Amino acid sequence: MRTGDIKTPALIADSKILEANISTMASRRPGKSLRPHIKAFKSTELAKKLVQAGHETFCCATIRELEGMVDAGMGTDLLLANETLDTTRLKNLLLKENCRITVAVDSKETIAVAAAAGIQEVLIDINVGLPRCGCSPEDAGFLADQARKSGLEIRGVMGYEGHLMHDPDTLRRTTKTEESMEILISAHETVGGDIISGGGTGTWDCNQAVTELQAGSYVLMDGDYSKLDLPFKEGLLLLTTVISRSKSGYAVLDGGLKSLSVDSGNPKLFDQGDVMFCSDEHTTVTNGSWSVGQRVGLRPSHIDPTIAKHELIYLVDEIEEGLDSEVIGILNIDLRGW
Amino acid sequence: MRTGDIKTPALIADSKILEANISTMASRRPGKSLRPHIKAFKSTELAKKLVQAGHETFCCATIRELEGMVDAGMGTDLLLANETLDTTRLKNLLLKENCRITVAVDSKETIAVAAAAGIQEVLIDINVGLPRCGCSPEDAGFLADQARKSGLEIRGVMGYEGHLMHDPDTLRRTTKTEESMEILISAHETVGGDIISGGGTGTWDCNQAVTELQAGSYVLMDGDYSKLDLPFKEGLLLLTTVISRSKSGYAVLDGGLKSLSVDSGNPKLFDQGDVMFCSDEHTTVTNGSWSVGQRVGLRPSHIDPTIAKHELIYLVDEIEEGLDSEVIGILNIDLRGW
Repeated sequence: MRTGDIKTPALIADSKILEANISTMASRRPGKSLRPHIKAFKSTELAKKLVQAGHETFCCATIRELEGMVDAGMGTDLLLANETLDTTRLKNLLLKENCRITVAVDSKETIAVAAAAGIQEVLIDINVGLPRCGCSPEDAGFLADQARKSGLEIRGVMGYEGHLMHDPDTLRRTTKTEESMEILISAHETVGGDIISGGGTGTWDCNQAVTELQAGSYVLMDGDYSKLDLPFKEGLLLLTTVISRSKSGYAVLDGGLKSLSVDSGNPKLFDQGDVMFCSDEHTTVTNGSWSVGQRVGLRPSHIDPTIAKHELIYLVDEIEEGLDSEVIGILNIDLRGW
Repeated sequence: MRTGDIKTPALIADSKILEANISTMASRRPGKSLRPHIKAFKSTELAKKLVQAGHETFCCATIRELEGMVDAGMGTDLLLANETLDTTRLKNLLLKENCRITVAVDSKETIAVAAAAGIQEVLIDINVGLPRCGCSPEDAGFLADQARKSGLEIRGVMGYEGHLMHDPDTLRRTTKTEESMEILISAHETVGGDIISGGGTGTWDCNQAVTELQAGSYVLMDGDYSKLDLPFKEGLLLLTTVISRSKSGYAVLDGGLKSLSVDSGNPKLFDQGDVMFCSDEHTTVTNGSWSVGQRVGLRPSHIDPTIAKHELIYLVDEIEEGLDSEVIGILNIDLRGW
């Protein structure tokens, strides 16, 4: 099968870039010093490539991701890097074999849920500047005491500097990340445990504070992260077909808002031309030498919600000009949903 | 089962609003004068409610939608209101029983594909101002001749005035729609056939030119269409749970970019408060009297790509304050994918 045989729209990934990105990260952050974030790609088959690269601990954002990772035999040290109030599903998860689940907690309610579900280990989630989950740093000690009183073991702290992740100024990103991580280190001194978990693709090298980095997008990258000076390359394309061409020169592709996410901006074209706009089923691209039936690749601006729209990614050895490559495998996106 | 038992994030729909929207449209556009657009909701179960309301012809945007509608017994007059170059799947579709498929064509290539697939009937798709699919009006006659020479019957024309669909100025929307439809009527005079197909939820009453209206979003509406003076009401919510609450007062919900689309703006809260921002798994909402575990409803800004992210919609009799309602049914979103 070749990319020309794929019905469009469909995601294709460049295997060479994927392997290079994984290898680059693993050389700087080997084994457990990286806790790859499954949320970015939602695929146990892709996670297995990370196991082959030496990683054995993972982050998940949803209980569905935890369940799938355990079922796929990669549940020996999973972190739910998110808060949950779903006692029932956590409890059911723990009935599975070979699973060690640590959950993030940031309130007495989430601590109570973890304890009631039979969870044994938690990280105290600290707000390090992003207005999202995480307790106030000054409450870390109190919550750790609460958790211990509830019979939970504290493995350490977690704090995600998501507000700094896309700052294109490397020096500022580094300085601000250091300041942000001082909050996390200070909370860790209060709380104890072996783990300081945080960071992501954007702070992969400027975050030296964490004992484990929570990166996921680096594996295939996207337009938003590519604005930074990172060594990872974009390896994901939405493959589309030109279904209409105007006399004035613009063309219409058969993929749009339902097959890629535009929350971080419109996609970019793999080859020549620019995107005019995306609508539900279409992307209109500016004047060029388009022909009806031609295959066109779009680089998504944001990988996570784009992949979550698809059932699978076609893997090719290398994405080349003309977009005619041998399909060498399929990555099922088996961890979608909640 | 009550909404409180639903794991979040999940879509819920207000059955009373759904029925009222369907009824309001059917009273103005009964039977075949409406060709409801399946793309908005991608559910054969919801389509069956439209059959009960008297409609029997439907629009689809994808071959997947055509296949599912035929399999569900609603294939007696389906229009692929979109261009396709997939001869194989069109051909396979025609092997199914009780199916009549009309496709939109706007080029010699799409005409050739329709003919090669064994399609018998087409509409000539005319560009009426939106830079997307549709031939130049002056080419309509030539393409109709081409289609007839290829053995295809011309049922008429189609033209979608999508660029006018969300104009909040009713008078301007009406005037511009009339101008746009003059192009379509003129093309129809050249082309012939019984059908003039076009329009949508936003031009449901100002488009008097079409013999059949292609509306779909009206069934459950969204924030974007609700800016217009339409008689249809918003009946769809993303049900979420507060998983974190800051001391300063903001709260974090467990639904974000992967469970609703923000291409037309952030969602609105069903009750009090405002959205600060959406991220992959979360929505942060402004200060209020939030409690961890509380259920919160978000009104999506754009229905089509939001529903396409979900496997099902929970149907409740009526969405009320407090978001605690009896679940009276489930609508499977069975026409997702391509």
